Amino acid sequence: MTDAHATHFDPALDLELRREAAVPPRLVWRAWTEPELLMQWFTPAPWRTTACELDVRPGGKFRTVMEGPAGEKHDNAGCVLAVEPERFLLFTDALGPGFRPLGSGFMTASVTIEPTATGTLYVARAYHKDAAGKEQHEQMGFHQGWGAAWEQLVGLVGRL
Amino acid sequence: MTDAHATHFDPALDLELRREAAVPPRLVWRAWTEPELLMQWFTPAPWRTTACELDVRPGGKFRTVMEGPAGEKHDNAGCVLAVEPERFLLFTDALGPGFRPLGSGFMTASVTIEPTATGTLYVARAYHKDAAGKEQHEQMGFHQGWGAAWEQLVGLVGRL
Repeated sequence: MTDAHATHFDPALDLELRREAAVPPRLVWRAWTEPELLMQWFTPAPWRTTACELDVRPGGKFRTVMEGPAGEKHDNAGCVLAVEPERFLLFTDALGPGFRPLGSGFMTASVTIEPTATGTLYVARAYHKDAAGKEQHEQMGFHQGWGAAWEQLVGLVGRL
Repeated sequence: MTDAHATHFDPALDLELRREAAVPPRLVWRAWTEPELLMQWFTPAPWRTTACELDVRPGGKFRTVMEGPAGEKHDNAGCVLAVEPERFLLFTDALGPGFRPLGSGFMTASVTIEPTATGTLYVARAYHKDAAGKEQHEQMGFHQGWGAAWEQLVGLVGRL
């Protein structure tokens, strides 16, 4: 898989989750781009996604509210950067809706959905400023968290 | 002029320079997108632009090095966000090349070039995180600086 849309994956800085499943690419895309679906899988239990706004076009809002079992609440309003329907989605927390700078920024994330003979090859990547950002994200549980969310997505898609 | 490419101009947060000149839009575009041209007008004298790298596509590098008369040096490597050839350019310092977050971000900037009966309507906008960002940019001399740079651009384009 080559880097799409001018992203550049650097193993020293970035993280990747790669999975295959017997689910149709178009349903994976729907799960990522329809708020009422995304809210059902995006956050590994016992956390929940309690609100979501998606405007799936460059400059559009990518907002999720995640709530934890002890009352923690993370409200992130990021920005969609690139869209290739049913194939590729890119967004960042360094910009808000309308590409407005937020003065901070932890990651840009890409989701690539490729059809296979039996379903979908799914590649989710997180791009960081530096190696410390990668390490912090790893320690926050990137692989476990994004992996658990993917399992929830596959379960949801199987019920659609 | 409506907001293009999902940007949203907010007068409370953002700044705008608007000029008309009897120069062809395609030469204004060249002055913004060819490094050897941009270096000749981008920085109001006595500052100079001493290096420039432009990859004019979403995710591409937008790098300028500006040097001042007392040896000051500002090296900014931002990211192109949207391109409409000869009409619209959008870039930010919140992301680096490849959309990689930089952990900071002062502005996103747009340049809109519209043909008129006699030449070009030029609108340059700077989008900030908040009103404090706008105020800081105003006090740094946004109107004077971007205005002087535009005059340098018009002069350059007249010699092409």
